[in-house]
Amino acid sequence: MIDTFPAYGGAVAQRSGGAVAAAKVGAVAAVVRSVSLAINDDPHTGTMDYGPPVPKIPAVTISTAAADRLDALLQSDPDARLFIRTSCATLPPVTSHNVMGELTGSEKPDEVVVVGGHIDSWDLSVGAHDDGAGCAQSIEALRLLRELGLKPKRTIRVVLYMDEENGGSGGRDYARSENRKAERHIAAIESDRGGFLPLGFGVSATGAMLARIRSWEPLMQKIGLQWIRPGGGGVDIGPLGESGTVLIDLVPDSQRYFDVHHSGIDTLDKVNSRELQLGANAMALMGWLLAEDGVTSSGTPRTAPGR
Amino acid sequence: MIDTFPAYGGAVAQRSGGAVAAAKVGAVAAVVRSVSLAINDDPHTGTMDYGPPVPKIPAVTISTAAADRLDALLQSDPDARLFIRTSCATLPPVTSHNVMGELTGSEKPDEVVVVGGHIDSWDLSVGAHDDGAGCAQSIEALRLLRELGLKPKRTIRVVLYMDEENGGSGGRDYARSENRKAERHIAAIESDRGGFLPLGFGVSATGAMLARIRSWEPLMQKIGLQWIRPGGGGVDIGPLGESGTVLIDLVPDSQRYFDVHHSGIDTLDKVNSRELQLGANAMALMGWLLAEDGVTSSGTPRTAPGR
Repeated sequence: MIDTFPAYGGAVAQRSGGAVAAAKVGAVAAVVRSVSLAINDDPHTGTMDYGPPVPKIPAVTISTAAADRLDALLQSDPDARLFIRTSCATLPPVTSHNVMGELTGSEKPDEVVVVGGHIDSWDLSVGAHDDGAGCAQSIEALRLLRELGLKPKRTIRVVLYMDEENGGSGGRDYARSENRKAERHIAAIESDRGGFLPLGFGVSATGAMLARIRSWEPLMQKIGLQWIRPGGGGVDIGPLGESGTVLIDLVPDSQRYFDVHHSGIDTLDKVNSRELQLGANAMALMGWLLAEDGVTSSGTPRTAPGR
Repeated sequence: MIDTFPAYGGAVAQRSGGAVAAAKVGAVAAVVRSVSLAINDDPHTGTMDYGPPVPKIPAVTISTAAADRLDALLQSDPDARLFIRTSCATLPPVTSHNVMGELTGSEKPDEVVVVGGHIDSWDLSVGAHDDGAGCAQSIEALRLLRELGLKPKRTIRVVLYMDEENGGSGGRDYARSENRKAERHIAAIESDRGGFLPLGFGVSATGAMLARIRSWEPLMQKIGLQWIRPGGGGVDIGPLGESGTVLIDLVPDSQRYFDVHHSGIDTLDKVNSRELQLGANAMALMGWLLAEDGVTSSGTPRTAPGR
């Protein structure tokens, strides 16, 4: 697959559901090869689930290089034994917070365009691409608009969502909060595919509303993007979509993302500042256009999120 | 500038012509800030010329970080003195060679599509992106076609040109060689912009011939490219263009190229294998389509190169 996201999506069940599948056939533990494109010694982590009907067996992910070595060992010695010691535990939940900031709309402050990424990351690294990049781009988008002295008609709000990685509660809580019910969320933009060269935007709208947003494609091409295409979303903004908010995701080059994703090498040195900046520029422009236009041409009635 | 190539093109005269400009106003030496996008300690090299009417003063390039330090020093102490020792010398030319290999055409072997890059590089590194990538992609393009068992109607020839960096004699010699006069060069493809994510192809053709080649854009989009656009060329294939050969260059993402270009860090670890492969795939497809089609729809008469 050329686009690495569907490749990841098709393979990741081995990690998320591997322990359950193994336990069902009587395994005492599950050892999963990292769901990564790179052959290296950096294991890839992420969510996994236990299904209630089967025993909760220990489950570990090993790096791709380690998996290759283990495979070679098992080929040469089918009776080889593997000893695993883990110190993992599921701790009780603690309270954490989304982080927000906004340029309040000058004409319709209660109509909101959300620009965001998620502020949590897996513990093996700082999560520079997943999703430090999306947070930095969202903050930078607002900073650019302010530096240009632009005052949007509608509110442009940065939301840095907590807990994308371990359940998505930050995005759900934002959409369902009492504070949001008085507002009308026109559109939500998310950057959560790494800070690589931005290729375009995916948009969840259809019909006239999609056509309106796609009419901005030449503007996006002026700042280095290639296209605006139908089909958009994101874990954090998904709950807003249930109430009719147009969901838009920044789509960067995907070739390098799963070399570092959820691993110890998702570090700042893997981020190219020019690529990151181009994505921030695009989010600023998309946010601005949405806030000025209101994308109401389709006449589709919207309800406030949370109802 | 979003495209870094015109940015480089607009700045590089400071290196190539800096010594002459400095000598004209009586300088005893020229110190040039690296023409690089990265702020680091890796100086950027490349060609420079001496003009006959002025003294050949010593000329050095220093890294961007060193230039910043020197600038700060001169701000604080305008009388600061800089001592330079260089061991550079222009050595006599030595004989070297282009490297070639081909899939000979089954129907019209004397009609040729050239696919290539340049095999020389600057001495600070192996030149992984400039232009190891183009050489690897060209060889891989032919390997892919052979692995698929495809036998092209016209000859597809890989040419790895010598001496792109220091004058372009390999490309000129190829175009003007006696061996080429019996052949008709339909098109020449060059990859010399780094092994990054391929965005598209630039094509030097116009009118019906351009339209024919652009009609393959949907095929290119299936393998991850974005577009086929007018305007193409390359140092090595330029001399073929003088005889009417259609010139085509692979255009990758340019954001990272001038972080490593002509410096000590243009090394293999900077090349992503998936990005490199996508470019090779595209060159294989473009080469194949040209060799099958012949791109003769415009009816433009062509003369053999070298006349």
